[in-house]
Amino acid sequence: MDALIRRIEQIGNPVVAGLDPMLEYIPEHVKADAFAQLGNSPEAAAAAVLTYNKALIDALADVVPAVKPQSAYYERFGWQGMRALAETIRYAKAKGLYVIMDAKRNDIGSTMSAYAAAHLGTVDVNGTVYTPFGADALTVNGYLGSDCVLPCLETGKDIFVLCKTSNPSSGELQDLQREGVPLYAAMGDWCERWGANSIGAYGYSNAGAVVGATYPAQLAELRKRLPHTFFLVPGYGAQGGAAADIAGAFDDNGRGAIINSSRAILCAWKTANTPPEDFALAARKEAVAMGRAINNELHTQLYTGIL
Amino acid sequence: MDALIRRIEQIGNPVVAGLDPMLEYIPEHVKADAFAQLGNSPEAAAAAVLTYNKALIDALADVVPAVKPQSAYYERFGWQGMRALAETIRYAKAKGLYVIMDAKRNDIGSTMSAYAAAHLGTVDVNGTVYTPFGADALTVNGYLGSDCVLPCLETGKDIFVLCKTSNPSSGELQDLQREGVPLYAAMGDWCERWGANSIGAYGYSNAGAVVGATYPAQLAELRKRLPHTFFLVPGYGAQGGAAADIAGAFDDNGRGAIINSSRAILCAWKTANTPPEDFALAARKEAVAMGRAINNELHTQLYTGIL
Repeated sequence: MDALIRRIEQIGNPVVAGLDPMLEYIPEHVKADAFAQLGNSPEAAAAAVLTYNKALIDALADVVPAVKPQSAYYERFGWQGMRALAETIRYAKAKGLYVIMDAKRNDIGSTMSAYAAAHLGTVDVNGTVYTPFGADALTVNGYLGSDCVLPCLETGKDIFVLCKTSNPSSGELQDLQREGVPLYAAMGDWCERWGANSIGAYGYSNAGAVVGATYPAQLAELRKRLPHTFFLVPGYGAQGGAAADIAGAFDDNGRGAIINSSRAILCAWKTANTPPEDFALAARKEAVAMGRAINNELHTQLYTGIL
Repeated sequence: MDALIRRIEQIGNPVVAGLDPMLEYIPEHVKADAFAQLGNSPEAAAAAVLTYNKALIDALADVVPAVKPQSAYYERFGWQGMRALAETIRYAKAKGLYVIMDAKRNDIGSTMSAYAAAHLGTVDVNGTVYTPFGADALTVNGYLGSDCVLPCLETGKDIFVLCKTSNPSSGELQDLQREGVPLYAAMGDWCERWGANSIGAYGYSNAGAVVGATYPAQLAELRKRLPHTFFLVPGYGAQGGAAADIAGAFDDNGRGAIINSSRAILCAWKTANTPPEDFALAARKEAVAMGRAINNELHTQLYTGIL
């Protein structure tokens, strides 16, 4: 997790931009070009997505440490979408961004090794080695236990295991308690175990956790419970989380979490009365403003002794 | 779930063939052709996979009711692998097979809707509707609760929710008990709730469950507990489950489950001293033999009153 934390420190912004390209988020002129060239096809949709993503990445690469493409929004455009996903990741990495593949993969050991190779590692084809997707981190659903986590960690890359997710129904299973310990905390305890052999320079391991901004009490509780587990925090902005809600995700040094925003950044051009041509600039301004709001909140809470 | 059950009855074989194409499972002559044409590239690997899958589908289509491609083994070959996956599904459906996409997807509601569209539904691109992958069923990890299940059921297709998985570490979280009810049973109870509005002609709903053959006691326990939940049972064969182990998955009518086998069918040509050219015939024989072993076991247990 050191590479991510170092980039957060350098840029001074604990925000990851989620790249979840719904077609309605993409300005008309970008889509019109793609449809004119390729018809109303998945190829055209994927081309529009890639053009949009590249412009966003250009505008964001020096103000956020990381991007997080959400696999579903690419799978939705079939293999053509997956090609745009692979090209998005390659482009983002070339610009120095840390890339979190948000795919929430999970399976038994042998199959999980295939997912790990696909998203974090390399694959050998008849003696030639290549990198299918090449992300720096993968989100993982830990319901299957160690078998679905360790193959990812063996690549030396990072993972984020779902603990307490941001959605309204997350409590149906994640809040079930055994001897006073909810399932999400038991999952968090496993993250500490899974990460024990990979604790880096900042005290955090390669086995991070996903904890939603929409549950601020659990976020603060888990921060205290899991000292070596870095948090990926979704749910900020469109899902309802605010700067005050995520302060508890950070440690006394102001580290320990990266906060995701997708819609607020991607659609900033729609809400800010921006000309559509300036969509990437609007995204940049929103990412900077969000980082400032979080940093202000952290500073205030540190200063007043709440943290 | 009616379409699947009807096909099982027609064919008389409760076996689904898992299509998990590792390159080492594919006979040399199939790979050699692909590498000669396309070099040592992901395109070549994907082409070899597709040729292999089509031959298997041709040989299996009248002896098994369903096939289950495992997404990881296609993602491993990047977008080229995903193209082979889409073409495999299209080919299998054209041959009348029911297709279970084993991708264990899961996410919050809006993102889950994108996965449901990708794998079970359709997508609109500027007024033109197309089908990205087009499976009949999707495996789903239910850790996020209803939000990650209902968007799939809204398509009218089937799902299989992970309850008790076949891998060695499945108990780490799935066996945690709350007031005597293990998590896997609580997940099963949710399957009954999620499926309540889609119970079909055979008494089973569109919300099935994944329960591993490697845990026969839990399999029999869940069959009794979840009367409307159809089971997808992995772990037979290579993972250690035998015919006697899965008898408990079936109801008094000999219905209620479909048993997956991947490696034993895919690699039958390696174990049966078959010429590599006859790999598909060997797979067919293995699928028939497996169905016969299961049907014999069910018949014996029904006859002796164990069931």
